[in-house]
Amino acid sequence: MTQDDTISAIATAVGEGGIGIIRLSGENSLTIASQIFEPKNGSNVIDIPSHRVTYGQIVDHEKDCVIDEGLLLTMHGPHSYTREDVVEFHCHGGAMAMQNVLALTLKCGARLAEPGEFTKRAFLNGRLDLSQAQAVIDIIRSKTDASLRMAVGHLSGEFSDKVRGFRHDILQMIAHLEAAIDFPEDDIDEVATDSAREQVVNIKEEIEALLSTAKTGKVLRDGLETAIIGKPNVGKSSLLNAMLRETRAIVTDIPGTTRDIIEEFANIGGVPLKIIDTAGIRATDDTVEKIGVEKARSYVDRADLILALFDGSSNLDHEDEEILSLIKGRKALIVINKSDLNAGSTVKEYINKELPNHEIIHLSTVNGTGMDALEEYIVDLVYSGTVEQKEGVFVNSVRQAELLRKACTHLDEVLNTIDQEMSPDFIVIDLRSAWEKLGEITGDTVGEDIIDQIFSQFCIGK
Amino acid sequence: MTQDDTISAIATAVGEGGIGIIRLSGENSLTIASQIFEPKNGSNVIDIPSHRVTYGQIVDHEKDCVIDEGLLLTMHGPHSYTREDVVEFHCHGGAMAMQNVLALTLKCGARLAEPGEFTKRAFLNGRLDLSQAQAVIDIIRSKTDASLRMAVGHLSGEFSDKVRGFRHDILQMIAHLEAAIDFPEDDIDEVATDSAREQVVNIKEEIEALLSTAKTGKVLRDGLETAIIGKPNVGKSSLLNAMLRETRAIVTDIPGTTRDIIEEFANIGGVPLKIIDTAGIRATDDTVEKIGVEKARSYVDRADLILALFDGSSNLDHEDEEILSLIKGRKALIVINKSDLNAGSTVKEYINKELPNHEIIHLSTVNGTGMDALEEYIVDLVYSGTVEQKEGVFVNSVRQAELLRKACTHLDEVLNTIDQEMSPDFIVIDLRSAWEKLGEITGDTVGEDIIDQIFSQFCIGK
Repeated sequence: MTQDDTISAIATAVGEGGIGIIRLSGENSLTIASQIFEPKNGSNVIDIPSHRVTYGQIVDHEKDCVIDEGLLLTMHGPHSYTREDVVEFHCHGGAMAMQNVLALTLKCGARLAEPGEFTKRAFLNGRLDLSQAQAVIDIIRSKTDASLRMAVGHLSGEFSDKVRGFRHDILQMIAHLEAAIDFPEDDIDEVATDSAREQVVNIKEEIEALLSTAKTGKVLRDGLETAIIGKPNVGKSSLLNAMLRETRAIVTDIPGTTRDIIEEFANIGGVPLKIIDTAGIRATDDTVEKIGVEKARSYVDRADLILALFDGSSNLDHEDEEILSLIKGRKALIVINKSDLNAGSTVKEYINKELPNHEIIHLSTVNGTGMDALEEYIVDLVYSGTVEQKEGVFVNSVRQAELLRKACTHLDEVLNTIDQEMSPDFIVIDLRSAWEKLGEITGDTVGEDIIDQIFSQFCIGK
Repeated sequence: MTQDDTISAIATAVGEGGIGIIRLSGENSLTIASQIFEPKNGSNVIDIPSHRVTYGQIVDHEKDCVIDEGLLLTMHGPHSYTREDVVEFHCHGGAMAMQNVLALTLKCGARLAEPGEFTKRAFLNGRLDLSQAQAVIDIIRSKTDASLRMAVGHLSGEFSDKVRGFRHDILQMIAHLEAAIDFPEDDIDEVATDSAREQVVNIKEEIEALLSTAKTGKVLRDGLETAIIGKPNVGKSSLLNAMLRETRAIVTDIPGTTRDIIEEFANIGGVPLKIIDTAGIRATDDTVEKIGVEKARSYVDRADLILALFDGSSNLDHEDEEILSLIKGRKALIVINKSDLNAGSTVKEYINKELPNHEIIHLSTVNGTGMDALEEYIVDLVYSGTVEQKEGVFVNSVRQAELLRKACTHLDEVLNTIDQEMSPDFIVIDLRSAWEKLGEITGDTVGEDIIDQIFSQFCIGK
């Protein structure tokens, strides 16, 4: 993990854009920029003050040609993202222009950055803690407003501050107890353990409140795997489109990323639904093909949320019954579609008899009735059990949740030790273990392998 | 075409990126920025000097939440891309973060920019001429180094300067001739027409030299439509891959844009080859399916370049003969593949007899022999007939070429008029027409409809 070299990468998404950025970080950033950037005002790149943009040309002197023109942004360490010297070339956002500028920086001695390496340097140089660093990629990948609020809260340190608070309190307890150990004659022993007991109970409660958000946090970050099942022509693709329409009701028409082509997300009340096999759903409705109960079964096994769709305008048939038997005993929402068409349908009665405890929603994908109820159901499902908190402090990764749980276990041991009136030395050992586990969340106590693993999930240029 | 309002758009490509930019231009840019951006150093956005970046938070006060954190770049007109006040929010490059920031700027009074509207404002405010403005989108879309050099040359004004030079000379002639008309007694009449004749011939020659680059310029900009034909298993997909490999030998592994998925470009010696039906080529070799001579015929009709592939390791069969008859009388390059496998093959002799005048290249996609010859052939083909010039002055659009041709026609009429010893008044009329046509290239004399049409081809945010 050498940090002595200067790294370079394309920092904007690749594709057709007005502006593209190539970013460098490291001690040679300014020198490299001075070799390839010619300010129009004749100034010397090295002399440009920090946090300025300068207009000029990017020149390949070896080939004696201008590669592009644009702005150079210089930021001197430690007042930069990585706390190192950072320069950004803002050029035209075409692939060829960006690649050429990138190649030129590499020719001048920069090294191609690894995924997440800019943020990793920001972490290693103390600009961000580990939980904040993780939030950076969560912001980039967030699918809904609620996911974004959660990630931004983490980035701004709301979550880390909570965790640091616990650590601070634990460390104070340790100090008190150690004083009691060192000066047993002072008789502060009992007082210290009594007060420690109370504090430990409080901290445990707060950690458990945080943990109650873990399920919701994970859904907001990664999406709720959702299966839409039902026989052909029951309206699966109409439901899918209705849910996606809500998502697409955004201010501008932005083409989906490659990611979105494969995984389609619907934004329902801030909850990102990751719809399983959208392509299949569309094809099934198009081609009046059998749904394939086997396929439906595999969706049902994978899904966090099952939307089982039935046609409210006609009576149930054999295929519908297969779907019903498939969801028996599972947490599924029954959606009766086309309920605007036949008020006298007996579908609901039949389903109520077969599956008495299932929630049922009446929907019309044609006129939109029932979409509100669907949203309410999903938001309830995802947020239920969450002790009310701001999204900014939601636990949002399996790693964080595990560490919090381990810290709780150690705190439980503290309580045991106290109750058994054992020596304060033992209490301190357990407190220290809890303190260390909490430190792994913020990265204060964490191994290099964990760090590498976290940053390898980043994209290049971040 | 109102320019009074403030426009806003996402300026970077959409997808996963480290940095995303939302750009505003117009008189309210700074006011809008001051409503939603809170500098960490407590400064007031309005007071930030031009060309500075400031670190802070983007805040939605109505919802009382932080949307993202990042840098604000302020550039005061006229020292900006559009010559208006411009601000850029540099936030995290995820779709949700960028959309939220964009939506916030719209809520504060900005209007969503039309495609190309930033550059259009740059043109209307005199920062770029029309030919330079067109080069902006050409840079973004350029496929090879040579295309990029051409576009950058245009942007930096190399091409416009040439055209302006012609216009300047023509205007001087007009002035001289008008003096002769106003003061006929001075007898400068004959001298003026003689000198005008010589100058017109010179200018015409120079314009024709420019026009000789039009074919090459178009290919560098749009690509050379290339068909690879041949029977199954002759190595079409191997050739395609070999050609694409050259292209992909770039410094970083960048996922293809959506555009590239549909249209695949190979970069051969700087010439972008737009390969027709790459998917079909791959499928054909995979599935040992008949090529379908009808399909090959349709490729051959469309293509600027035909690469007809034959297997040099075995004798020609009926299918090969169909391919041969297909290219008879057309400009096609015959490529004999697998020539490393059978030195004694009679394929070449046979083809030479059938199509005596066709150029033949021996190739092995396995060891790479012959790729150089292929590159040389293609570069020769594209650059032949081009009077030697720097790519920066290549004519690169049909519009430019047409206007240059029209200007030439008017100059021919000037010569006619002079030769027929007609009155200088008539010479002036034709000169003025030529002068106006040339002005349409740079946008000095051009209608609003043409301007709208040019900028509508741009992407949003540029």
